[in-house]
Amino acid sequence: MTTPTTVPPDAFHVYDTTLRDGAQREGLSLSVNDKLAIARHLDDLGVGFIEGGWPGANPKDAEFFRRARTELTLSSAQLAAFGSTRRAGGDTAQDLAHLRESGAGVVTLVAKADVRHVERALRTTREENLAMIRDSVAHLTAEGQRVFLDAEHFFDGYLADPVYAVECLTVAAEAGADVLVLCDTNGGMLPYRLADIVGAVVGTGLRVGIHAHNDTACAVANSLAAIDVGATHVQGTANGYGERCGNADLFSVISALEVKTGRQVLPPGRLVELGRVAHAVAEVANIAPDAHQPWVGSSAFAHKAGLHVSAIKADPDLYQHVDPAVVGNDMRLLVSELAGRATIELKGRALGLEPDRDTVLRVIDRVKDLESVGYSFEAAEASFELLLREEMGERPHFFRLESWRVIVESRGGEVISEATVKLHAKGERIVATGEGNGPVNALDNAMRQALQALYPGLARLELVDYKVRIVSGEHGTDAVTRVLVETSDGVTEWDTVGVHENVIQASWQALEEAYTTGLLRQGIDADR
Amino acid sequence: MTTPTTVPPDAFHVYDTTLRDGAQREGLSLSVNDKLAIARHLDDLGVGFIEGGWPGANPKDAEFFRRARTELTLSSAQLAAFGSTRRAGGDTAQDLAHLRESGAGVVTLVAKADVRHVERALRTTREENLAMIRDSVAHLTAEGQRVFLDAEHFFDGYLADPVYAVECLTVAAEAGADVLVLCDTNGGMLPYRLADIVGAVVGTGLRVGIHAHNDTACAVANSLAAIDVGATHVQGTANGYGERCGNADLFSVISALEVKTGRQVLPPGRLVELGRVAHAVAEVANIAPDAHQPWVGSSAFAHKAGLHVSAIKADPDLYQHVDPAVVGNDMRLLVSELAGRATIELKGRALGLEPDRDTVLRVIDRVKDLESVGYSFEAAEASFELLLREEMGERPHFFRLESWRVIVESRGGEVISEATVKLHAKGERIVATGEGNGPVNALDNAMRQALQALYPGLARLELVDYKVRIVSGEHGTDAVTRVLVETSDGVTEWDTVGVHENVIQASWQALEEAYTTGLLRQGIDADR
Repeated sequence: MTTPTTVPPDAFHVYDTTLRDGAQREGLSLSVNDKLAIARHLDDLGVGFIEGGWPGANPKDAEFFRRARTELTLSSAQLAAFGSTRRAGGDTAQDLAHLRESGAGVVTLVAKADVRHVERALRTTREENLAMIRDSVAHLTAEGQRVFLDAEHFFDGYLADPVYAVECLTVAAEAGADVLVLCDTNGGMLPYRLADIVGAVVGTGLRVGIHAHNDTACAVANSLAAIDVGATHVQGTANGYGERCGNADLFSVISALEVKTGRQVLPPGRLVELGRVAHAVAEVANIAPDAHQPWVGSSAFAHKAGLHVSAIKADPDLYQHVDPAVVGNDMRLLVSELAGRATIELKGRALGLEPDRDTVLRVIDRVKDLESVGYSFEAAEASFELLLREEMGERPHFFRLESWRVIVESRGGEVISEATVKLHAKGERIVATGEGNGPVNALDNAMRQALQALYPGLARLELVDYKVRIVSGEHGTDAVTRVLVETSDGVTEWDTVGVHENVIQASWQALEEAYTTGLLRQGIDADR
Repeated sequence: MTTPTTVPPDAFHVYDTTLRDGAQREGLSLSVNDKLAIARHLDDLGVGFIEGGWPGANPKDAEFFRRARTELTLSSAQLAAFGSTRRAGGDTAQDLAHLRESGAGVVTLVAKADVRHVERALRTTREENLAMIRDSVAHLTAEGQRVFLDAEHFFDGYLADPVYAVECLTVAAEAGADVLVLCDTNGGMLPYRLADIVGAVVGTGLRVGIHAHNDTACAVANSLAAIDVGATHVQGTANGYGERCGNADLFSVISALEVKTGRQVLPPGRLVELGRVAHAVAEVANIAPDAHQPWVGSSAFAHKAGLHVSAIKADPDLYQHVDPAVVGNDMRLLVSELAGRATIELKGRALGLEPDRDTVLRVIDRVKDLESVGYSFEAAEASFELLLREEMGERPHFFRLESWRVIVESRGGEVISEATVKLHAKGERIVATGEGNGPVNALDNAMRQALQALYPGLARLELVDYKVRIVSGEHGTDAVTRVLVETSDGVTEWDTVGVHENVIQASWQALEEAYTTGLLRQGIDADR
């Protein structure tokens, strides 16, 4: 075995497979940029391993590993590359070239551990399958790679032929694999049955991992049951994303281990980041967060029981299984009078602002009103800052809108977008036109055209992300649109939000606040 | 004890609490009509008990029981009324009048089994709490009612003071309660710990039930663990609806019991109704079905892995933990950039099309090319069908675009959108204009304006969802935009996709395919 070099300590592995197995979720499609962003969030949380993809099977995954070498600096996690053993009758060195050269610190090799899969899907012999495992693991470890073995269909295989299933593991271990990961690939196991099998394998002295799917709604329970009987490596995905019914939700697994069993599996102080990371990953994946998700969902600690509110307030520990702050979540009492004065004050202080009590109450009301019509300030702190400044009489106005107009036209296969803005700034009235590859880009260009002479600092601002979400999708295109814009000045980034039934107007709002924030941060004086 | 009279036999109870505990879900609000409709669906499925509500605490629930007497004819289920024991120091007959008179066949009495709740929330003594349980159960059984006891906070109570927690149960059993239901009210238990406690209680000879919440993502596993050690009564809700993270999903519990443990808990032949009932309840509750829900979700048996499709086709049992037909669901193969020949052929066959080998290869290439620039066909099966028909020379063209133009303008605080389309259809050239609350809505209205005289069937089509995703977010508003449109004709729904750097053009593509699919399904002849 290779010497463990991971930080955090190697005794227990939290292994994330969002970027590979999670991406199998129906409807989910992650770009390489998305994958890099998710990897950074998972590293912030402190997982031990991030499986980046299958470089041999998917060109996008190969690009991820290529770019990760220069663009991804991880503080606690190691990257893992996933791939098959050599093919039946194949050339080991040639078949494993992608894995050997991925640059990842770990290779996770997938192998069949179910004799029926060997014979009916791989169409090879039991002996050749064992040789494929042995040769592949040996080749990679000889090259200095750390190797984990994913034993696919292990549990079904064990039930069909336990001797052969375990032989697949021992062959891999003897060839140098560090961890033997038992996969419930079809997701059909129940915890009390799975635990018996995992216990038997652990009893052989092998280091065992668990990879569970949620087809019986037991993925988290199966993972915990395996750990309870001695597994020391757990695989799962952010928010439980994955094929069919999903993988084990790694966030639920981590929370239960740290909170319920007292086993520390993240670096100290990280668990409190869980809620934030869960939402950030959902945002990147463009999947609406599940409000009812255990531990991190916005409803996870929300109490509807009107009759008991005073009891809950007086003695919250009687009504929740854990203090939600532990995982970065909040208790919510679903009655409107209880909004967060302390939150607003804290946020103001973080921005260097000291709103008085009346201002705080007005801000609470406005946030409540705006969120009820679709705004979300959690993902747009710059817009929140402008709102707070406005209520304090300290919001700068660098320019004032008279009107804008956007024309998009398709003619003879060509699509053109053109925007005209009429603005007032520093005593001038300015009319400017911009073109773009879409209506919002044209509007952005027209604004820059209009303002750049008066505010040269605008040239340093770049829109780095633009997201659209339909907030209530009941009437198709009648729905309200929320636009989130992320802007960068090359040093810091900030997010602004706009909401309107018209996507262009929502975009205008977000752009206006993006530029206002940028100029504010540059210390520019407003003209009024 | 009263003589069991239920059908199915009383040996095992499937007890649904959707109408009471499920209705605590944040955002869910059920009318009395909704509750009656859900009760009928659950009875169709064959559950043994349907908890209708809390007639003493909620006037809507009292009305439910009143109307149920005349409007609800149940074939397999009995209604249960939920309520508290008498108050501390209260008059038993008076406090329980609502329950006694509800007309339900069973009363489920809730009592505190955690001494801390007795002292800190009820603010009474241990002894008075026991007297409340004893008096209330005895009163109702003397009146001829069958009584189940819901022991609230049982597990937390057992961990704090096991002797007292069990005493609450034995007092109730001695007074005539049939089933002692152990409630994990705060949802914090893990299965292997819960099973130890349930096993200990079962060992005392009491008839035990389980009521689990999903706060650790283990509600189903906790329920199954309890049954494994001897519980013979399980409570849960349709689709797992419930406060915070929800209750145990009764549908997952039933499926696991029947399919995985071979225990028949529904009347014969009913399990196949599960998928239909799950969706029907979601429809009544006005909650979008969870595609990833175990057993019944539309993705629960969907396979994305293109490389393995031929193996799945040849030997489906190797790739699914159960035949989905058993629970009224289907296997689905998803088209994606990884799709192989087998997927395309199977998809074609499902659509009644028989593409030849060359066509299939061309389709694979086009899917790959289109997905590499941002299309996603797994979420847009109607667009895939049109692509396949196009390659077979069978794609209808009901109209042809000459040009479109969209103008969006903001002036004096008002935002207006106007679209003009120039189309050719059935030998005519049509110019039409539409207004809307946004650019896409205006374009949609202009198209309808242009085409409705020639294709009156368009009036039946409604856009029910519209989604926008920025596919590669590297350059802000320069990014490519993917639009997904879901359209309904009131009977079926279909999804189409458009991709372009310009969101309006992407929307146009998705709309054009949405209408083409709708007209195709109406059997309309294309004009060329």
